Amino acid sequence: MKQFKRILYGGDYNPNQWEKSTWKEDMEIFRNAKINSATINVFSWAKIQPSENEYYFDELDEIINMLTKEEYDIVLATSTAALPAWMFKRYPEVGRTDYEGRHHKFGQRHNACPNSLIYQKYASRLAGKLAERYGENPRLSCWHINNEYGGECFCENCEKAFRVWLKDKYQTIEVLNKAWNLEFWGHTIYDWDEIVLPNALSEGIGPDKTAFAGISIDYRRFNSDSMLENFKMERDAVRKYDQETPITTNIMGTYKNLDYFKWAKEMDIISWDNYPAFDTPWSMVAMTHDLMRGLKNKPFMLMEQTPSQQNWQSYNSLKKPGQMRAQSYQTVAHGSDTIQFFQLRRSVGACEKFHGAVIEHVGTENTRVFREVKQLGEELEQLDGILNAENQSKVGIIFDWDNYWALEYTSGPNKDLKYVDQIHQYYRYFYDKNISVDMIPVDADFSNYSLVVAPVLYMIKDDMQEQLEKFVSNGGTFVTTFMSGIVDQSDNVHLGGYPGPLRKLTGIWVEEIDALAPTQKNEIKLGNEHTGTSTLVSDLIHLETAESLGEYTSNFYAGMPIATVNHYQNGKVYYVGTQLDTSTMSKLLDQAINDAEVESLVTEETELEITCRYKEDECFTFIMNFTQTNQKLPKQFTEAIDVLTGNKLEEGKELIPYETILIKE
Amino acid sequence: MKQFKRILYGGDYNPNQWEKSTWKEDMEIFRNAKINSATINVFSWAKIQPSENEYYFDELDEIINMLTKEEYDIVLATSTAALPAWMFKRYPEVGRTDYEGRHHKFGQRHNACPNSLIYQKYASRLAGKLAERYGENPRLSCWHINNEYGGECFCENCEKAFRVWLKDKYQTIEVLNKAWNLEFWGHTIYDWDEIVLPNALSEGIGPDKTAFAGISIDYRRFNSDSMLENFKMERDAVRKYDQETPITTNIMGTYKNLDYFKWAKEMDIISWDNYPAFDTPWSMVAMTHDLMRGLKNKPFMLMEQTPSQQNWQSYNSLKKPGQMRAQSYQTVAHGSDTIQFFQLRRSVGACEKFHGAVIEHVGTENTRVFREVKQLGEELEQLDGILNAENQSKVGIIFDWDNYWALEYTSGPNKDLKYVDQIHQYYRYFYDKNISVDMIPVDADFSNYSLVVAPVLYMIKDDMQEQLEKFVSNGGTFVTTFMSGIVDQSDNVHLGGYPGPLRKLTGIWVEEIDALAPTQKNEIKLGNEHTGTSTLVSDLIHLETAESLGEYTSNFYAGMPIATVNHYQNGKVYYVGTQLDTSTMSKLLDQAINDAEVESLVTEETELEITCRYKEDECFTFIMNFTQTNQKLPKQFTEAIDVLTGNKLEEGKELIPYETILIKE
Amino acid sequence: MKQFKRILYGGDYNPNQWEKSTWKEDMEIFRNAKINSATINVFSWAKIQPSENEYYFDELDEIINMLTKEEYDIVLATSTAALPAWMFKRYPEVGRTDYEGRHHKFGQRHNACPNSLIYQKYASRLAGKLAERYGENPRLSCWHINNEYGGECFCENCEKAFRVWLKDKYQTIEVLNKAWNLEFWGHTIYDWDEIVLPNALSEGIGPDKTAFAGISIDYRRFNSDSMLENFKMERDAVRKYDQETPITTNIMGTYKNLDYFKWAKEMDIISWDNYPAFDTPWSMVAMTHDLMRGLKNKPFMLMEQTPSQQNWQSYNSLKKPGQMRAQSYQTVAHGSDTIQFFQLRRSVGACEKFHGAVIEHVGTENTRVFREVKQLGEELEQLDGILNAENQSKVGIIFDWDNYWALEYTSGPNKDLKYVDQIHQYYRYFYDKNISVDMIPVDADFSNYSLVVAPVLYMIKDDMQEQLEKFVSNGGTFVTTFMSGIVDQSDNVHLGGYPGPLRKLTGIWVEEIDALAPTQKNEIKLGNEHTGTSTLVSDLIHLETAESLGEYTSNFYAGMPIATVNHYQNGKVYYVGTQLDTSTMSKLLDQAINDAEVESLVTEETELEITCRYKEDECFTFIMNFTQTNQKLPKQFTEAIDVLTGNKLEEGKELIPYETILIKE
Repeated sequence: MKQFKRILYGGDYNPNQWEKSTWKEDMEIFRNAKINSATINVFSWAKIQPSENEYYFDELDEIINMLTKEEYDIVLATSTAALPAWMFKRYPEVGRTDYEGRHHKFGQRHNACPNSLIYQKYASRLAGKLAERYGENPRLSCWHINNEYGGECFCENCEKAFRVWLKDKYQTIEVLNKAWNLEFWGHTIYDWDEIVLPNALSEGIGPDKTAFAGISIDYRRFNSDSMLENFKMERDAVRKYDQETPITTNIMGTYKNLDYFKWAKEMDIISWDNYPAFDTPWSMVAMTHDLMRGLKNKPFMLMEQTPSQQNWQSYNSLKKPGQMRAQSYQTVAHGSDTIQFFQLRRSVGACEKFHGAVIEHVGTENTRVFREVKQLGEELEQLDGILNAENQSKVGIIFDWDNYWALEYTSGPNKDLKYVDQIHQYYRYFYDKNISVDMIPVDADFSNYSLVVAPVLYMIKDDMQEQLEKFVSNGGTFVTTFMSGIVDQSDNVHLGGYPGPLRKLTGIWVEEIDALAPTQKNEIKLGNEHTGTSTLVSDLIHLETAESLGEYTSNFYAGMPIATVNHYQNGKVYYVGTQLDTSTMSKLLDQAINDAEVESLVTEETELEITCRYKEDECFTFIMNFTQTNQKLPKQFTEAIDVLTGNKLEEGKELIPYETILIKE
Repeated sequence: MKQFKRILYGGDYNPNQWEKSTWKEDMEIFRNAKINSATINVFSWAKIQPSENEYYFDELDEIINMLTKEEYDIVLATSTAALPAWMFKRYPEVGRTDYEGRHHKFGQRHNACPNSLIYQKYASRLAGKLAERYGENPRLSCWHINNEYGGECFCENCEKAFRVWLKDKYQTIEVLNKAWNLEFWGHTIYDWDEIVLPNALSEGIGPDKTAFAGISIDYRRFNSDSMLENFKMERDAVRKYDQETPITTNIMGTYKNLDYFKWAKEMDIISWDNYPAFDTPWSMVAMTHDLMRGLKNKPFMLMEQTPSQQNWQSYNSLKKPGQMRAQSYQTVAHGSDTIQFFQLRRSVGACEKFHGAVIEHVGTENTRVFREVKQLGEELEQLDGILNAENQSKVGIIFDWDNYWALEYTSGPNKDLKYVDQIHQYYRYFYDKNISVDMIPVDADFSNYSLVVAPVLYMIKDDMQEQLEKFVSNGGTFVTTFMSGIVDQSDNVHLGGYPGPLRKLTGIWVEEIDALAPTQKNEIKLGNEHTGTSTLVSDLIHLETAESLGEYTSNFYAGMPIATVNHYQNGKVYYVGTQLDTSTMSKLLDQAINDAEVESLVTEETELEITCRYKEDECFTFIMNFTQTNQKLPKQFTEAIDVLTGNKLEEGKELIPYETILIKE
Repeated sequence: MKQFKRILYGGDYNPNQWEKSTWKEDMEIFRNAKINSATINVFSWAKIQPSENEYYFDELDEIINMLTKEEYDIVLATSTAALPAWMFKRYPEVGRTDYEGRHHKFGQRHNACPNSLIYQKYASRLAGKLAERYGENPRLSCWHINNEYGGECFCENCEKAFRVWLKDKYQTIEVLNKAWNLEFWGHTIYDWDEIVLPNALSEGIGPDKTAFAGISIDYRRFNSDSMLENFKMERDAVRKYDQETPITTNIMGTYKNLDYFKWAKEMDIISWDNYPAFDTPWSMVAMTHDLMRGLKNKPFMLMEQTPSQQNWQSYNSLKKPGQMRAQSYQTVAHGSDTIQFFQLRRSVGACEKFHGAVIEHVGTENTRVFREVKQLGEELEQLDGILNAENQSKVGIIFDWDNYWALEYTSGPNKDLKYVDQIHQYYRYFYDKNISVDMIPVDADFSNYSLVVAPVLYMIKDDMQEQLEKFVSNGGTFVTTFMSGIVDQSDNVHLGGYPGPLRKLTGIWVEEIDALAPTQKNEIKLGNEHTGTSTLVSDLIHLETAESLGEYTSNFYAGMPIATVNHYQNGKVYYVGTQLDTSTMSKLLDQAINDAEVESLVTEETELEITCRYKEDECFTFIMNFTQTNQKLPKQFTEAIDVLTGNKLEEGKELIPYETILIKE
């Protein structure tokens, strides 16, 4: 399969929205910014296919010819993420029925029912035609199927498809009744046709909860699978004509609805859209990059970011000078081989016209944004050597969509318990310490890591218990927390005492789980000296083979452990029974990394982010200042050369906010 | 009719969700906790009736046989609170149409349209079959119809039934037009068929308000009646085969949708489900118990409480050690003859799996929760003598669903005016003073009381004016407040000056009603020395025959009365024109209880709750500490014996939080 | 056409809701209050027309006969604002489909689909019949069509009508595709029938936003036009029989849904309903009066206000003594020739029964409210000389519904950006300074003003650029702000650099627009000495021909202008690039009014509102104290006579809160 030959630098480009005279202008301006790639044809279905059997490729031909001549790396989208109006008009079934049970009319995008045969027929046919026509173009570097798959549909076609999906999975009604615990509330069914989709008109409780998590989790799996089938269908249509070009679709970080680990298996390369808000912590951005890299454990594409301003957030702050550059290097540092913008020229109308672009509405190069894009382009042109470099981590943090769904469906104990937040609280520790982390699936090969962290590992399924026991037996260090080991793959409780399948590993029994309102907290201590507070939930832990690391000092369970460590064969297992304040969390995890012999990339304490990628015997070290004040460069980097500027780094050097340094060793 | 022979101690039990091996285990464990009762068959309709004419009782037979053999008091539910999936599939009309006008699909529970003939047919047939089969079982102690009736339906069948209900009530269109004041906004109707149900698609304004309270209040009456008909229908089906066993359904305290005073007339015994949240005041819990007792003015059943943790609240805190015991004794103190839990064994899946149970997921007796259940079981076994003991009160507080509905439908003067909160503000005074209160209906025999309190008695209907005048004439003391006497049974204003029919009794005229935003308050004084503040609404009162008890000292109506007292024949009437701070409220009501010669159960000031039940010449005094700190036992109880522990109570004795003492005199 | 011969003093009167005996009582009481006008028949359609071809006028005849005999000025409504129930029952299409796509059933009011032919047929027929019957009554002073037109409909009839409206406007599909920028997201259409209404089931994003502002703005225009057609249809039906009486409909200030400037062209006289909340600033009330006057640049009617209390607000505070009087004089001061109440007698039932009235539920004259109404009536009787007096302003502030809609549809930069708030921030400066303002449309004759202010003039359409340039060329002073000049009439961006068509006039280029979250602010300075803060959005301004007036002193754009002034031909243009704190705003506008030679009505600083109306050589000066404390009368008014009391105003005179003085010079 084709490989990128350079760092792709470009982004979404919609010349079809503009006069031809503008196209020429674009080419000149982009050239000055060293832009070498364009993502095209993302939303042109209606234009390309005016009716069932008519296709019109002239305009796309012209665009591709132009880009080919200009030697772009072309990322060619299949245009299927927004249905043509005529299709909605003639075949209303192509639209979605929403969670409230309302069938939608034409509008917006990401609006196709994934189980509509009409949609499937025309989407795959279009993908095939595009591949047939453009698949052999040597400038074609990547296929981009659809766009930001997402949402959900509760129409009749989906309901019927759900029943088929369930029959494949469970085979018999008896197994299904058992899996979903339908004896509860007398929901026993006798026929597949009695099953209805779980939305606001059936099992849904408010927008986020459900009466039967078993049903709702299966619906999420089904919905994710349905869209994945849409992806595969287009992918296969493309493959028929083009066996060489990698195929991707742009995904969305920790987006809840799709199980990206499952999707990743079907994608040749991961690409994603990175849109932090003005107040998103940089550690969260880093974590999401690591998750995206972790999906295939390979370098990825940054398919979209904005050069400066967003439009759909509540408060769309400008990126400050240097911020886009620093954010881009963070992206590369965490494993991206491309930097692509949405978009290259700002659209004149409709809801994204306040979304930043390389060429702003003023239409010239004379903007701060353009100058920053150009500077980055010139720098990246020198960095192709980094392509395919890998990230290396001794720490793996488990991220799992089944757990994401199941944990957030729980009715109790505390409505404020959120999956991604919990994962991020642990990730942040390593980020702050400049310790590289892999975000890994539940079925990862744990033996690649010396430390595996699994916050709120609520659902334990398949052979995970065995795999974790094997990992620890062989000397691994494992960290897990409250709300772990509770249920099986169908959201039925592992009976016999929490944390269920983790009880032996952790050496504890959790008798009760207290919930704390936002106004409440527990006093705690860790070891003999450190005191702190804990919130959200509090496990009441009994030691079995484990030792206590600290105790509650308030509430009726004062004296009971807040966290424990258990020696299990050659390894150790840490269990954290409550949501710790940052400082206590940090003290606790210091012990775990010590056990696991995990070290920071840097010996001094620093508030800089320092991240490395490795290739053969080269190491690319990215040093970024994401704080609001100047930060001293750690001594170990003095005398090194900053590849980006060519400067030698002097002792006492301080990085101003957003300043970025790249050292190659 | 059968009477309970012991305090029922047990709760919801669903062995059908478990293997037979577990049943045996259950019996042993329950025996150790002195559990003697089980509520069964609450949600098994689908299991028992797999299709229209098939019934399957084998499993239920086994359960009943087991419980019979173990000499349980069986509470047998009819299983009709959740429809079978097949019935939804084949007869979609059995489902409800919600306030938003959406017809629901299969899912959740409490999902039957009360006016569906299909539902009625199969529900009553099932109830009859159960009674025929099990009605003569000597261990059968109570029938439990359906479960937590509630919700509302706005389907076509209900719309048609509503028209019939209205025709029965109003007889002619003219009377209806007048009652609902349909001349307003030109809503005059000419035919019964023009009437539509008042929901979000017609008269509803947001989820809580309405353009025509007359229509909406009648809808609430109709909806309450429709479900009551469902109850009566099942009850009658049972009675055909079993004339001996009392019949109940579990109700829900101050739940808004159903007029429980009307329901109580059809129930043999009241049973209810008590689920305070972590921040519910204990006075509110006490008030709700008193309301439940008041429905029939008889002892009741506590059908459900959790041994420790809830699951569906926002923050499901654990019950602290002793808290469940104290809460249980509070329940008995206020009139319950049973203590039943939801549930006996915690379910393995679906939305209540985080709801506490006697046997937790760990499956053993070795839990704090179990030990507390067991201790209570052992104690209760000694207390059967309390069965049928009564509570005695000289104070009655009026609670009325018509008023609840009407007051909260008002558009104006202040959106924060809530019925139950207002009642509770008055109840709390008596609770804090350890004065026993009966919660009474508007048509109570007031002569049983020396003091009748009617906060926000917004709607005055039928002969209530006469009854109140008679009560006061005969020497009674009556307390009422702002927003009283405003409307008649159809929500039309009693013209001629507020408080309408209460004007003579109160001896005042309320000219205007000011509304205060949450940021506003009025300065007030009571008598010559006490000063305070008032909020929410402020009546502008003119004295007619009454005297002022205090005045506003701020705002343009400074100098006008905040509260008044009127000598009326041999009695006195207090009127409170604004929402008082606690201390002013207390000073004011001190005068009223003085007039009414009502006294506290205890001579000292104390923060303990002290509540008595009486039987023949015995008095059971419950003393409970619901505060967070130790409280001194009042001197009058020293030397008494605590029946629960057998200890003699020494002088200086302090009760720790949740400690409970029971004295029998 | 007929003119009012006196100040109309009265309001909504619904004797049809009462017994005849009450009518007589009403006449006496009203006479005592000098009430001389009644607005009748607002909601009687169902009563007047019991079925398709039956009409019943007896009751209305009686009412009109009574009022005629009593020599009232009759304001006769057409009753079409609430559909009869029978019409809903027989022709469901007369109801509306809401934004959520739900078709409504009978209920409430303002419930007719504007594009229902059934509704149109019967509404215009009724209007015609009323005119035929009563049009020649000499006491008829004004026709009142419908009532408070508003809301929106998304039914199929509206969808079809929308397509026709669009075809008329755009002629070809190509033009439409271009105008709405449908190339974006591939929304290209090929047939008019592919167009769907933009609601929650299509382009709507939440309740307020849209994927395609071009479509949604056109829908708003269409919806406003549809209702305007309803108005014109009734108006024309009336005109057929009555060519003499002015025709109005009561409108609602800054109500968003209807383009009142367009409506004003079809109305003989503007009338409006003024319902400030307890916390509405008096400057906002004044601004709204000025907007209502500005619609036709003529005196208007105050069709509704409450004598004291509202009912549908969250906190319906009483009007304090004197407040209603002061509010009424403010109304007259800003151009009203009538003072009318909703309503004359308080209704007995339904949702407005807590809405204040001249005759309260007590039914007598013995109320504070009545006494205040009576006092005002006696005063107004002396003031007929003010009829038709005009307001004079050298300052015009632009208000434009297209801008209102377009600005609030933007996705970005800051969700808190609200149109009316922005306008009011500028209006308030002039209000506080007692400088008279005209609220003017975008197509006003600017030459009537020396200063034109256009905050957030987001959409620049038609020949506005030329008109503004001409205005400034001729010596005018123009003030505009951030978010101006951005888009054309279809919401497509004016390319080439913000503020687009205003770039030459303002002499600046806005490169970027930063958004600030509520927790953020920028430090700023104005001139050399004044410092302040700015919030919401911050333009990054480059000077072209303009001069800077002040700069940011924080953030990365410190040193860039916050505001500029540009000399353009004989005039000056101020541009304000961020939301200023009040004090900085004031300092800045001081310069602008100085340039424009605009002066306050009063030489001293004062917190009083002082407003004048002029007639021939008379000047009516209203002086009102809307603060909560006493305010000193400015010296220039000492020795003048207060027309309302006949008192000579002495030096040192202080006005107490709500005190009002009227001086005639």
